[in-house]
Amino acid sequence: MKNESKPSKKEAPAPHPLHVVILAAGKGTRMKSTLPKVLHRLAGRPMLDHVLQTARALGAAACHVVIGAGAGSVRSWYAQAHPDATDVAFVVQEPQLGTGHAVQQAMPGIPDAARVLVLYGDVPLIEAGTLSELLATAGSAMGILVAQMDDPHGYGRILRRAGKVAGIVEEKDATPAQRRIQEINTGVLCGPAKSMREWLSKIRNDNSQGEFYLTDLVRLAVRDRVRVHTTCVSAAAEVQGVNDRLQLATLERSYQRQQAERQMRLGVAMADPDRFDLRGSLLCGQDVFLDVGVVIEGEVELGDHVYVGPYTVLKDAKVGADTRIESHCVLDNAIVGRSCRIGPYARLRPEAQLADEVHVGNFVEIKKSKLGHASKANHLAYIGDATVGARVNIGAGVITCNYDGAHKHHTVIGDDAFIGTDSQLIAPVTIGAGAYIAAGSSISKDAPPQQLTICRARDQRSLPWKRPVKKK
Amino acid sequence: MKNESKPSKKEAPAPHPLHVVILAAGKGTRMKSTLPKVLHRLAGRPMLDHVLQTARALGAAACHVVIGAGAGSVRSWYAQAHPDATDVAFVVQEPQLGTGHAVQQAMPGIPDAARVLVLYGDVPLIEAGTLSELLATAGSAMGILVAQMDDPHGYGRILRRAGKVAGIVEEKDATPAQRRIQEINTGVLCGPAKSMREWLSKIRNDNSQGEFYLTDLVRLAVRDRVRVHTTCVSAAAEVQGVNDRLQLATLERSYQRQQAERQMRLGVAMADPDRFDLRGSLLCGQDVFLDVGVVIEGEVELGDHVYVGPYTVLKDAKVGADTRIESHCVLDNAIVGRSCRIGPYARLRPEAQLADEVHVGNFVEIKKSKLGHASKANHLAYIGDATVGARVNIGAGVITCNYDGAHKHHTVIGDDAFIGTDSQLIAPVTIGAGAYIAAGSSISKDAPPQQLTICRARDQRSLPWKRPVKKK
Amino acid sequence: MKNESKPSKKEAPAPHPLHVVILAAGKGTRMKSTLPKVLHRLAGRPMLDHVLQTARALGAAACHVVIGAGAGSVRSWYAQAHPDATDVAFVVQEPQLGTGHAVQQAMPGIPDAARVLVLYGDVPLIEAGTLSELLATAGSAMGILVAQMDDPHGYGRILRRAGKVAGIVEEKDATPAQRRIQEINTGVLCGPAKSMREWLSKIRNDNSQGEFYLTDLVRLAVRDRVRVHTTCVSAAAEVQGVNDRLQLATLERSYQRQQAERQMRLGVAMADPDRFDLRGSLLCGQDVFLDVGVVIEGEVELGDHVYVGPYTVLKDAKVGADTRIESHCVLDNAIVGRSCRIGPYARLRPEAQLADEVHVGNFVEIKKSKLGHASKANHLAYIGDATVGARVNIGAGVITCNYDGAHKHHTVIGDDAFIGTDSQLIAPVTIGAGAYIAAGSSISKDAPPQQLTICRARDQRSLPWKRPVKKK
Repeated sequence: MKNESKPSKKEAPAPHPLHVVILAAGKGTRMKSTLPKVLHRLAGRPMLDHVLQTARALGAAACHVVIGAGAGSVRSWYAQAHPDATDVAFVVQEPQLGTGHAVQQAMPGIPDAARVLVLYGDVPLIEAGTLSELLATAGSAMGILVAQMDDPHGYGRILRRAGKVAGIVEEKDATPAQRRIQEINTGVLCGPAKSMREWLSKIRNDNSQGEFYLTDLVRLAVRDRVRVHTTCVSAAAEVQGVNDRLQLATLERSYQRQQAERQMRLGVAMADPDRFDLRGSLLCGQDVFLDVGVVIEGEVELGDHVYVGPYTVLKDAKVGADTRIESHCVLDNAIVGRSCRIGPYARLRPEAQLADEVHVGNFVEIKKSKLGHASKANHLAYIGDATVGARVNIGAGVITCNYDGAHKHHTVIGDDAFIGTDSQLIAPVTIGAGAYIAAGSSISKDAPPQQLTICRARDQRSLPWKRPVKKK
Repeated sequence: MKNESKPSKKEAPAPHPLHVVILAAGKGTRMKSTLPKVLHRLAGRPMLDHVLQTARALGAAACHVVIGAGAGSVRSWYAQAHPDATDVAFVVQEPQLGTGHAVQQAMPGIPDAARVLVLYGDVPLIEAGTLSELLATAGSAMGILVAQMDDPHGYGRILRRAGKVAGIVEEKDATPAQRRIQEINTGVLCGPAKSMREWLSKIRNDNSQGEFYLTDLVRLAVRDRVRVHTTCVSAAAEVQGVNDRLQLATLERSYQRQQAERQMRLGVAMADPDRFDLRGSLLCGQDVFLDVGVVIEGEVELGDHVYVGPYTVLKDAKVGADTRIESHCVLDNAIVGRSCRIGPYARLRPEAQLADEVHVGNFVEIKKSKLGHASKANHLAYIGDATVGARVNIGAGVITCNYDGAHKHHTVIGDDAFIGTDSQLIAPVTIGAGAYIAAGSSISKDAPPQQLTICRARDQRSLPWKRPVKKK
Repeated sequence: MKNESKPSKKEAPAPHPLHVVILAAGKGTRMKSTLPKVLHRLAGRPMLDHVLQTARALGAAACHVVIGAGAGSVRSWYAQAHPDATDVAFVVQEPQLGTGHAVQQAMPGIPDAARVLVLYGDVPLIEAGTLSELLATAGSAMGILVAQMDDPHGYGRILRRAGKVAGIVEEKDATPAQRRIQEINTGVLCGPAKSMREWLSKIRNDNSQGEFYLTDLVRLAVRDRVRVHTTCVSAAAEVQGVNDRLQLATLERSYQRQQAERQMRLGVAMADPDRFDLRGSLLCGQDVFLDVGVVIEGEVELGDHVYVGPYTVLKDAKVGADTRIESHCVLDNAIVGRSCRIGPYARLRPEAQLADEVHVGNFVEIKKSKLGHASKANHLAYIGDATVGARVNIGAGVITCNYDGAHKHHTVIGDDAFIGTDSQLIAPVTIGAGAYIAAGSSISKDAPPQQLTICRARDQRSLPWKRPVKKK
């Protein structure tokens, strides 16, 4: 999984440490949002987080995130999401005078010996493999990431002389012949910090927008006879930027499709790869089957031969081998053993912990409770704050009354107990091993093991009675 | 929203009022249905309704709907769906002798001064903007809506002389050269009523089908040296007709995709625009997020930052800002306040009305009831015909017994009451403010405020007992 | 439906009986599975089962399935899935020395007079119509199924001389000119058994893979001046083989789309044909509407005007005309009458049998029970092992206590009974016709007809009480 990548361990500092500058200052007006653009989520995480993770996968010594619009929001998201990270520096660009100006703001924090890689907080799907190739190709010279476009309209075209990069010409300045060039500039580039610092000090804003363009570095490099190497990106989605909700949704689906295909290559069976959403990481055993419409969030692990039914949502869940989770279930922070049968319509809430061979059926909610081996709660029950032994049968409609309006109390049920239908277990209460609770009982005191405990009305009476009749 | 368009206000009658003729007489044999074709639904409304709405958006003085097959069904649908509308006249075409004949049936109701626009009840996605352009281009002459087709096979081709429309030639009559023409006739046309009346009286049915074709009007106009202007439609879906279920489904998805893109342009975040269905109107605040598979019907309003989880269905619902509606919920005719937490698996039925900060959890049904500020019903409850105060806690399994077999009765619960687990509130009944109902109680009389009220068996007994053993 | 095809009745043996050889010995390493490749499921059935069914639709006298990897699994699946079938013989190929070698293993079981057709267990979507055409074209000579490919790279090309098949050349042996040939070999072929037996004994494995190739038969046939006829397949999916999960998912969606279009052509309305899954057979009356995300398994029949809501799962169910099944329902082995209203969130389990006009509402589970005409169970109930009469009202939260920890017991409810909210019916128990059970009753003895029966606590008391306060 992408999001399982870990930053490479700190080793002796590289002679040319990699510093990644991430441009993330744009407001993103077309998103029509109060959120700064780079915080919009793709597969559950801010676009900026995807780019940061990619930077870490490259072994970056540091990331310099250039922020502007919504700077406070970006900083506080980061502090909350990565409280222990120390390799990211935020630099404020204010006012925002173009991409060259943005990178310039980050340069004071970058040593001369470094190599600089410029990425974009709103181009979330760029892959570490592509960037590694760019860095390797560029070596100690300059490198730009290019793409081949069937319709290059609107992009800066790569000009070459004798095969070597000679410059970049923008659409509006291009001659008709240049406009036919299909090799375009993606904006991603790398170069030696020292030279970049020098070039950045020389670029000018004498253009129609009055902005300092990062692209100008290519011109200056060529002028200084620094070789500009290129790497061509293979998948267009990698360099696709996000300016509006539609573009974000398009990248979301492209990313989800990628993830689905990756899971299938690893051996996961899927009823429909276009109806699969993974927002986090998924680790599957052999012969896992995901039916249509499964949504996965957080960290999920599924053992061998696990079946997940249609429209089930799994979040931060761990499920043992041979377990079936039927349709329309919701699991959140739950641990499920092997050979269990869950659902349909089962809801396992945080700290639900099921041993092997447990059955949890329809319209059952389990929260902060352990169910022992082969125990069953098959219908319409609420089990909260309970420790349930092995082979316990929890009848339909059973409810642990764990809340008194102020505190939560615990219920303990021993092995082999049978909890009759529609009983209330008024916590704190203990049901002994092998105890049998009669249907409809309100149990407010401990029930001894191996005995029948009953607490319900017993005087069943019948009396003549005139049924109410609907008034006309 | 298309369906938010209102007919333009009645003003002084235009010198050339617009009369729209909608051909809706076809049976639609290939639909294999008992329903006349134009009543088949797209995004929840009959195709004919889409066309009528478009006609109204154009400010039509009147619509003349030519019906035939299933005429009675069309009339009764209309009477029920638009009981107050007065701008639609139905004309029966019987027998059905072609499109020209169909329009002829409508002409007696159209004044000479009018401009006539001919639309089709089975071409539901034609847009008012396109038609306005057609009308403007045509002026007091004739106008036809054309399209450019990569594969024009089967369509009537537009013949031009010196750029001007000279006629229309049908596929079967076309020369090889004419068949290469990619400009085709969509069938939509407009013209001055007086001339059209005259031309319609002159068209003949001496063709292989023995039908009177509307297309012939173009020939007669050209003969009479009336200029025939054209407007070219940009999106093919606009002029796509529906003859079978597959074509209808294709248009449905095309329309739904359009609606999804429109919502995204307005700032709505969507996990998957291809898994979004809107059958009605949706008005969203800022930063609303719709997860996969949300279905929306009727009139729905969602406040700022509302989150709607996977596979939730919302119908005629109004939801306040910052509310989260989790997965697998069904809301129908419900009003939900701000900062509420709903679901998963919550069902809000008609006249459910939740104040701010209310929590409604899994397997809870609420019908014709008000819940006050910050009240909670988190698990397995049925609340019907109740007025619930603020900060009330409704335990798991609580049921308002509102029905005695003949009548519905009301339950009133005061502020700060605590309704213990699995209690039955046997209506009519009032629970006082701050009352505490013990778990498992059957409450058939009013419970005083601030007191503990209990009504359950109390003699919990345990007795020796031999557990039943399964016979082999 | 494909899976409704029945093997043709045994008649007098044909002079040239058809013997189908199905190659199914591959392990399918790229599936990354413990299951042999041909047992992986498409639309709920093993790929091999699809091919066997197609063979039967052709009226094959016998099928010879050549197995190898996972032979035991294939045999035991077949024995379980088709316990009564007698027309399939399994032949083990061990070691696996190529396709020619595989077919050779099957030949001992095939009479000289037979015609042999070779199919592949991992090419599941080949259609009987295509194969019939191939067999008819080939007559008593040889026939090969070919395809036209825009990109033929990697396939064996068909060489022709004067229009007639002259041979097949593999990619690696092809000249540049031959590589431009777009007519390719699909591997499916047929021929007279006697000649095939002879040719198979002559093919050699003097190639880079050291395998015996079935393709060589074409060369030998040409050499022997046996005419090799061709039939060209129209849809690429028909001859698409499955080597990994992604290819299987692609065929699954292609097959599901086909099935959706077939249903629409028969008159079924679908909100989204790309969100429809049918794993079995579906028989629909007129004007059935399937909303988004419906999943159908096993044998399902839906009467006229049935509506099935979003995300509902139907398995082996029969539903009467005019019934509405709302969203998020799960039916399994249930029979539902006419004009019923089911769901949302209703679960009908095996042997649920509902008469006409029955209502089953949200969070209700029904198992092995009959509900009579116009009976209702609208909220949060569990009805198991019960016989319910007509016009019975089952209140919210009612539970039949059918299980005593060892045995299941039966509940009988007479016509017109009213079962008050949250009652437990402790089986075995009988509720008389017209009986009225008071809310909250625990009914452990039979309740007489027409009377009010009550069994709940009656001493509702209120007492001063200090509400627990949350400790800080």
